Amino acid sequence: MATSKVKGSSATVGKIRKQADEVHRKIVAKATPSLKFPLRSLANVKYDPKRGFLEMRGRKKERTLTVSTVKTFAQTLRMMSLSKELVEQDDIATKREAYYVSKNWDECRFLEQTESDTVMDDVEALFEVNREQLGFVPEEKGGEVAGRLTILDKDTDSGKTLRIDCTKFGSGAYSIPISVEHLGFETDAKFVLAIETAGMFQRLVKHNYWKTAGCVLVSMGGVPTRACRRFIRRLADYKKIPVYVFVDGDPYGISNIYRTLKVGSGNAAHLNEYFCVPQATFMGITPQDIVDYKLPTHPLKEIDITRAQDALKNDPFYEVHPKWKHAVEQLMRLGVRAEQQAFAKFGLRFVMEEYLPRKLKEPKKFLP
Amino acid sequence: MATSKVKGSSATVGKIRKQADEVHRKIVAKATPSLKFPLRSLANVKYDPKRGFLEMRGRKKERTLTVSTVKTFAQTLRMMSLSKELVEQDDIATKREAYYVSKNWDECRFLEQTESDTVMDDVEALFEVNREQLGFVPEEKGGEVAGRLTILDKDTDSGKTLRIDCTKFGSGAYSIPISVEHLGFETDAKFVLAIETAGMFQRLVKHNYWKTAGCVLVSMGGVPTRACRRFIRRLADYKKIPVYVFVDGDPYGISNIYRTLKVGSGNAAHLNEYFCVPQATFMGITPQDIVDYKLPTHPLKEIDITRAQDALKNDPFYEVHPKWKHAVEQLMRLGVRAEQQAFAKFGLRFVMEEYLPRKLKEPKKFLP
Repeated sequence: MATSKVKGSSATVGKIRKQADEVHRKIVAKATPSLKFPLRSLANVKYDPKRGFLEMRGRKKERTLTVSTVKTFAQTLRMMSLSKELVEQDDIATKREAYYVSKNWDECRFLEQTESDTVMDDVEALFEVNREQLGFVPEEKGGEVAGRLTILDKDTDSGKTLRIDCTKFGSGAYSIPISVEHLGFETDAKFVLAIETAGMFQRLVKHNYWKTAGCVLVSMGGVPTRACRRFIRRLADYKKIPVYVFVDGDPYGISNIYRTLKVGSGNAAHLNEYFCVPQATFMGITPQDIVDYKLPTHPLKEIDITRAQDALKNDPFYEVHPKWKHAVEQLMRLGVRAEQQAFAKFGLRFVMEEYLPRKLKEPKKFLP
Repeated sequence: MATSKVKGSSATVGKIRKQADEVHRKIVAKATPSLKFPLRSLANVKYDPKRGFLEMRGRKKERTLTVSTVKTFAQTLRMMSLSKELVEQDDIATKREAYYVSKNWDECRFLEQTESDTVMDDVEALFEVNREQLGFVPEEKGGEVAGRLTILDKDTDSGKTLRIDCTKFGSGAYSIPISVEHLGFETDAKFVLAIETAGMFQRLVKHNYWKTAGCVLVSMGGVPTRACRRFIRRLADYKKIPVYVFVDGDPYGISNIYRTLKVGSGNAAHLNEYFCVPQATFMGITPQDIVDYKLPTHPLKEIDITRAQDALKNDPFYEVHPKWKHAVEQLMRLGVRAEQQAFAKFGLRFVMEEYLPRKLKEPKKFLP
């Protein structure tokens, strides 16, 4: 499992070296060096369900070394150099740390973290790898795991393989690290169940639901972080198992959580390829569930309605999936939303003993 | 380790039964039943550093059964009954689930979750136990652990003890469950290091810092959740080890994170006794560190200034600790704040190899 890590690392260093050599050659030849970045904007995004994620159309912007671009140009090269150092030394830096490292770059230093974040995003897009492969890691964590899964990691000092058995955490769980590229997996689970709230996750863990259902439970804690999305993706790819997503029946659960997990996000399309889970399907609360189970509901909020309208109008994901279009339209007609805890009306165990088992009998009926 | 749980459980059921019997006796005797709740407000709070936390002064409000209180009164009894059921069946309910359970209480049902939350807080204060002991658990999770600690939990089905070795998580970590009352600990760690950001935690985990320093690392991920505070408290009490808190040098890190961890919060004083860590001391960035290390800083924001002024004016914690008063005043004079990542200016490993070891040589100098 460590192999892929090492391969990835040397490949990254090679790419950085190649790009830097080119800049160097131009300068020595007294020509003007330039760097070409993919355009990172919604206008440069398309969605092909066969490919599985929101991806860039390939338009690029060029940054040529001139008097006015000299600082950003230099910062970009410095950032590339920091990345090379990190990868070679098997170290990591958060966005915030990278910003502070720049304080030592004299005239090149960043004045605000937003500046260094943008340059980091550029570098990431330039090499068409994800930030984790550059040694940069996000600030935020998130994602807990319990159930039929053994994770393979290694001890930094001894290099020895660590086997982390996620059936042995009792009421606790495994917390997904910020970077997951080096992890290996062993599992006989039939599927991954990704859950919106920590509360619902805790219920399923408390009652060993993963044992009865033969699955891996992942708590997303709201919108899944990059690490959480990548973790699920690598696990599902590796073991060729489906991913079922259990979220609230509202535009936030559907668009912000489920859609982001499945196809990635619109304004970071340069990295969706790595941070999406195309094999995910929706076993969350559908508008039809609200009707069928007569669930307790809340009226849709203003922001819910805006979200739903946006989805129907601009989002290529809904365009491609008419079933989703109809579902969101039905939700709008109902004018209400329902939370995944709403089943507690029928008793606290209903969700585990009735709702989930019933759904799991017909995964083909899940929304795409 | 399971003993304390069982004891706690039957004690809780006993308390609920006694209170309910009293109400029942009054009704049978055709007298007016009433319940007495401690007043939950800042005005009813005091701080004695020997006791170690913000605590209630003991003022109470009485809720007597009348025409206008009948619904809340009934809801309170229903909530007590739900709690008894949960404890007896070793189940749990989140605040949100409890709200939905009430949808089956006919006329008694809550219309908004804020109503049921308030009643739950009342019940918690009434019995002077914490919500977890009533079977109620918070929605939010938080808190990761790595380092020299073995956690004892048990398998729900088999009842067998699970030994969770936190030195064996590689780049991952142990995620603290929502309720921690039943956990046991084995450790030879010299101290607990509680860290503000997930990014800094990840750095220390990546480099096995816990090994060199001989400690347990806990990531709080911002303001620590109840579960996280309780976990640290139980661990520190049990092993009689100090807790050092490493946060940003700003009013948020000092007041919202450190002060809350150490003495609890002002508006939930009825439960601070359980959710505070009086043995915590501050090894975060002090205003003096900003000067000594010439750290990169940001100007204090409006909200920082308001927070600092509030602390100096109203907070009994600062009143009791003049050292803290002076530190906050110094920060105000400097007019800046510094983040724990700022040491990256001196290289990414500086914080591990220089700053923390230097500090650890003189824990007596830590702010109280």
